[in-house]
Amino acid sequence: MTVNVAIIGASGYTGAELLRLLACHPKINLVGAYGMKNTGKKVSEIHPHLRDIIDLTIEEPNCEKIVKKADVVFTATPHGVAMKLVPGLLRENTKVIDLSADYRFDDVKIFEKYYVKHESPELKGVYGLPELYRKEIKLARLVANPGCFPTAALLGLAPLVKKKLIDLEHIIIDAKTGTSGAGAIPTESTHHPVAGANVAAYKATTHRHAPEIDQELSKLAGQEVKAHFTPHLLPLIRGILSTAHVFLKKPMTNSELLEIYREFYRDEPFVRVREELPQVNYVVGSNYCDIGLENEADGNRAVIVTVIDNLVKGASGQAIQNMNIMLGFEETDGLRGPALRP
Amino acid sequence: MTVNVAIIGASGYTGAELLRLLACHPKINLVGAYGMKNTGKKVSEIHPHLRDIIDLTIEEPNCEKIVKKADVVFTATPHGVAMKLVPGLLRENTKVIDLSADYRFDDVKIFEKYYVKHESPELKGVYGLPELYRKEIKLARLVANPGCFPTAALLGLAPLVKKKLIDLEHIIIDAKTGTSGAGAIPTESTHHPVAGANVAAYKATTHRHAPEIDQELSKLAGQEVKAHFTPHLLPLIRGILSTAHVFLKKPMTNSELLEIYREFYRDEPFVRVREELPQVNYVVGSNYCDIGLENEADGNRAVIVTVIDNLVKGASGQAIQNMNIMLGFEETDGLRGPALRP
Amino acid sequence: MTVNVAIIGASGYTGAELLRLLACHPKINLVGAYGMKNTGKKVSEIHPHLRDIIDLTIEEPNCEKIVKKADVVFTATPHGVAMKLVPGLLRENTKVIDLSADYRFDDVKIFEKYYVKHESPELKGVYGLPELYRKEIKLARLVANPGCFPTAALLGLAPLVKKKLIDLEHIIIDAKTGTSGAGAIPTESTHHPVAGANVAAYKATTHRHAPEIDQELSKLAGQEVKAHFTPHLLPLIRGILSTAHVFLKKPMTNSELLEIYREFYRDEPFVRVREELPQVNYVVGSNYCDIGLENEADGNRAVIVTVIDNLVKGASGQAIQNMNIMLGFEETDGLRGPALRP
Amino acid sequence: MTVNVAIIGASGYTGAELLRLLACHPKINLVGAYGMKNTGKKVSEIHPHLRDIIDLTIEEPNCEKIVKKADVVFTATPHGVAMKLVPGLLRENTKVIDLSADYRFDDVKIFEKYYVKHESPELKGVYGLPELYRKEIKLARLVANPGCFPTAALLGLAPLVKKKLIDLEHIIIDAKTGTSGAGAIPTESTHHPVAGANVAAYKATTHRHAPEIDQELSKLAGQEVKAHFTPHLLPLIRGILSTAHVFLKKPMTNSELLEIYREFYRDEPFVRVREELPQVNYVVGSNYCDIGLENEADGNRAVIVTVIDNLVKGASGQAIQNMNIMLGFEETDGLRGPALRP
Repeated sequence: MTVNVAIIGASGYTGAELLRLLACHPKINLVGAYGMKNTGKKVSEIHPHLRDIIDLTIEEPNCEKIVKKADVVFTATPHGVAMKLVPGLLRENTKVIDLSADYRFDDVKIFEKYYVKHESPELKGVYGLPELYRKEIKLARLVANPGCFPTAALLGLAPLVKKKLIDLEHIIIDAKTGTSGAGAIPTESTHHPVAGANVAAYKATTHRHAPEIDQELSKLAGQEVKAHFTPHLLPLIRGILSTAHVFLKKPMTNSELLEIYREFYRDEPFVRVREELPQVNYVVGSNYCDIGLENEADGNRAVIVTVIDNLVKGASGQAIQNMNIMLGFEETDGLRGPALRP
Repeated sequence: MTVNVAIIGASGYTGAELLRLLACHPKINLVGAYGMKNTGKKVSEIHPHLRDIIDLTIEEPNCEKIVKKADVVFTATPHGVAMKLVPGLLRENTKVIDLSADYRFDDVKIFEKYYVKHESPELKGVYGLPELYRKEIKLARLVANPGCFPTAALLGLAPLVKKKLIDLEHIIIDAKTGTSGAGAIPTESTHHPVAGANVAAYKATTHRHAPEIDQELSKLAGQEVKAHFTPHLLPLIRGILSTAHVFLKKPMTNSELLEIYREFYRDEPFVRVREELPQVNYVVGSNYCDIGLENEADGNRAVIVTVIDNLVKGASGQAIQNMNIMLGFEETDGLRGPALRP
Repeated sequence: MTVNVAIIGASGYTGAELLRLLACHPKINLVGAYGMKNTGKKVSEIHPHLRDIIDLTIEEPNCEKIVKKADVVFTATPHGVAMKLVPGLLRENTKVIDLSADYRFDDVKIFEKYYVKHESPELKGVYGLPELYRKEIKLARLVANPGCFPTAALLGLAPLVKKKLIDLEHIIIDAKTGTSGAGAIPTESTHHPVAGANVAAYKATTHRHAPEIDQELSKLAGQEVKAHFTPHLLPLIRGILSTAHVFLKKPMTNSELLEIYREFYRDEPFVRVREELPQVNYVVGSNYCDIGLENEADGNRAVIVTVIDNLVKGASGQAIQNMNIMLGFEETDGLRGPALRP
Repeated sequence: MTVNVAIIGASGYTGAELLRLLACHPKINLVGAYGMKNTGKKVSEIHPHLRDIIDLTIEEPNCEKIVKKADVVFTATPHGVAMKLVPGLLRENTKVIDLSADYRFDDVKIFEKYYVKHESPELKGVYGLPELYRKEIKLARLVANPGCFPTAALLGLAPLVKKKLIDLEHIIIDAKTGTSGAGAIPTESTHHPVAGANVAAYKATTHRHAPEIDQELSKLAGQEVKAHFTPHLLPLIRGILSTAHVFLKKPMTNSELLEIYREFYRDEPFVRVREELPQVNYVVGSNYCDIGLENEADGNRAVIVTVIDNLVKGASGQAIQNMNIMLGFEETDGLRGPALRP
């Protein structure tokens, strides 16, 4: 059985990454690439690395037609766009994986505070972090693929927050990302002469991934959690390194902590708990999330370091992992490629 | 049928890249990783991105034992090492693909001038550039995988040199490479504070890839050719962009030139002749070689630009392409992954 | 005596670099910063590194007012803008140094072929390469500051072309530049995710710095010269490395060649002829132009490598050097800072 | 009056940076460059950007001879070396500024825990952070120049810690540094193919700059403070961005916080308190320390971002600032150059 797959939002970086990864997926058939920009152009004109690999032309999205062709649709559109399309896509038997923020929030008011007015608030997506919601994803028709920073932050904190081993009032998440997270449209802060030898904190206390992180940490803890999240932009194209600084309720050794992580992620195909602190280039190009940690000899702080490729585990790879789960495929189908290192 | 494959030289970058690519090859079984360094260590200790993917320990190479386990052996060793091992490896029915320079030269004297004294000069390898020697590779037991710069330079020049359309006395090859070409051992010129925002020409007239290029251009032309080759080191990890500046014997249009390239590479799975000048990030992470060109409106010079990933088409990917040909596999098996862009 | 200086085009990178360098110039007084963009904003809002150093507000340029305040005006405007302003600026006793291409060409038709229609073709600038035109600059009221690529290419080739030691039909200039040369306005090709790990040839045979190079080489040779110029964009912010590949009319040794360069540049304060091939980081941040060379043992090709900082010796530093000459200052005033390395 | 200055440790990056900056200092005369490595070589052979600028040869350090020539000596040696030389240097009337850690600690036991056994523990240096210890530096004969991370961290935290406005138990300092901080000797972690597109936390809870930070914070607070310090290595050559995450004892607005910083640093020539969060490229190449901050709307956390050039304000620039103070020069002499941006 081959499943027909379409992508809406084929011009952006997450669209390109879906195409790159799906080009090697053994069980699917790409039937359409859609977008509001670049319609009429070949995918490979916009994404020259896909020349001779993807032979689709970008078309304007028409949901009625798309659902006739596609069993699964990825919406890799800017925030606020999927909410207009998804109701139409779900009318038929299609399954939808939305890579935007549109369906990530349990409380539509929080979404609307940080993004825009919601146009299909009645629809609920399953939060597509397989390590926490695999069972729900299996049954879902609409999966809300997590943000890149939340993916890294949540996988790094879930074991400790779930077991309530840390002080929930003093969680600091200091994240570092490459510039591809800012998308394909040139801006001053990603202009190479500015970004190429620079580091900058941005939206240091107001980033919209913060409420997404808080929502999931709160569910894990069974109580309201407000973490403190600050992202930084680095002279790097791909990759997120997320450093969580936490205070342990009672002193623990490194090996006790590691054992908790190993146990928590024992059967996970894409989480590697490591003895050493992982580096971004352990995972770039792959769907892996690597986690390592260290705690202070005489203190009670632990540092948990998580790395992902923001476009793979932080977006398109995780979306395909969700698709694999929804369709009953091997969860690793099309996602087994190791990182590109060096 | 699964073929058993071993790698000698597993600690270096071409060794790591063989492991990365072979980990996803559908028809082979990795049976051994060997090296003089890091013996006794897990492959994934040296190459942390391969954790949970490659579960081999690096052993000291013993040819007798290796040939009992392996149908194919890759020697990804420093120049001068394979020449000691290959005679032992060929004693059984094993096939060998050598990624070093040891068997690339028809004339051992030229090898010895640029490298070291040869210890098995009686053995001859087939020059492993499939676009020129596919038939010979199919029958070979020993393939000498080309150098990274020669791969880029030769694929860019072969059509014009073979058809003798250019002045053979004035061929300039100005090549630009990333730092991974220098290998895994730290040196001053690849120290990040030195290399991270720098450009340097090196061995501007004496690089040892020059005689390798000349050997193959001469065979293509049917006469002795001496091209002028100058490499540059860039603040880039992977990728080679090779700019050939040539003088046409008689004026031709861009489309006439392009047509010659399209014809020459019509059935090649890994050469993409493009209308525009290709950029390094069209191919990094993939086995593609992209070629584009431009000639002067009023002049007779043409500029041919070739890009490859130095570790893939310039080394380990091409070695696997050669293996696929030698074993009668699909030539693209394990090599269909597109470039990682952005 | 303090000289009053104004800058038109204060928002761009060459404007910023003029401000950075003039801030430390011992004999001038900055009296105005002008531009069509960002009028009403503080210079330090646009160029945050100049906070507390330059306390000027960007004003719309009014030539009548400017010439009343300023003894010297730098026009660091886009091509086609200075030609509208300079006639007004020269009406008083002001001296003008134009960093655009508007007054670089002896033949206005060539300018108009590559740029736009000229609006003040009757005005002639002195070509502001002090190493070739110091005497004329001393007397000039309008200096046309050279392009960045021509500065590097001409300083690298002048000694050999002037002495006619090379085959003038086969001069290849393969140049590599950082992204700051593309200016301050974000574009796709300088978007960090695209440019940050890439190399690209561009305008491989049609760059508008080519006719500028040809004009000056022709004057040096006393005959028409058409060099072959191809630029490349690198993942680097500042710096140009220009590789000239030339064919010697008769074989010469490295030391004979070097001696010619040493003699030619004997009294030049900003040209360093080196024994080794210079690298970009020898000069970035400084006004130096470093030159090195190598010729083929058995051949007749020589490789001449020239490095400059494109924003300093390739633009604003050279403009200040010209100002120093025009005003009778020490030529090195305000320009003695070494490169920033590492 | 010209002061004679010598540098011990001329081969390293802080040595090179002293030479770069002192080359333009108006009131000193460089009389000697010393080191254990590269003795007999020209400074400009090791630091090619200093060619034609510094004409000294590196000599083996002989304290007796040095103190006869030099009024001021900078020891830019590895940790553990200055302690052997400084007693000899102080025997005459020489003033010494030590850039290593040897004299930074009030309690020699802490030094010995993190570094090596001290060989001249009886000598005490003044901690050379002018913003905190200007008066003491003025009178000192031995100044212990602060570490790069402590400089950034302390300037960012001093106003709040001194006024005890924050919870001293939960201070997180998450610092990001370029690779030049690791020094001139190539290592695996600074090998370009490894470091060029990577981020890594290192010594996440055990870095030896932590006790130095704690010593000074404790003195500021008048009670023992243990901050939580974690450094990260970025694909950047120069620059530190230090992010302090602190919890306010009582809610304050951004402008209240800013006002405290402005007041604290009102007369400081090298600290710029900014409205926006500063970025690394605002200061690279200069002696400035830029500080900005943001606090959470509904929370009690503030984020304080500090940026410096690790080799200038974080090492050699600050050392010269200290020299200027010790000698009664203008504090900004030789240090007025703005950052190199872009």
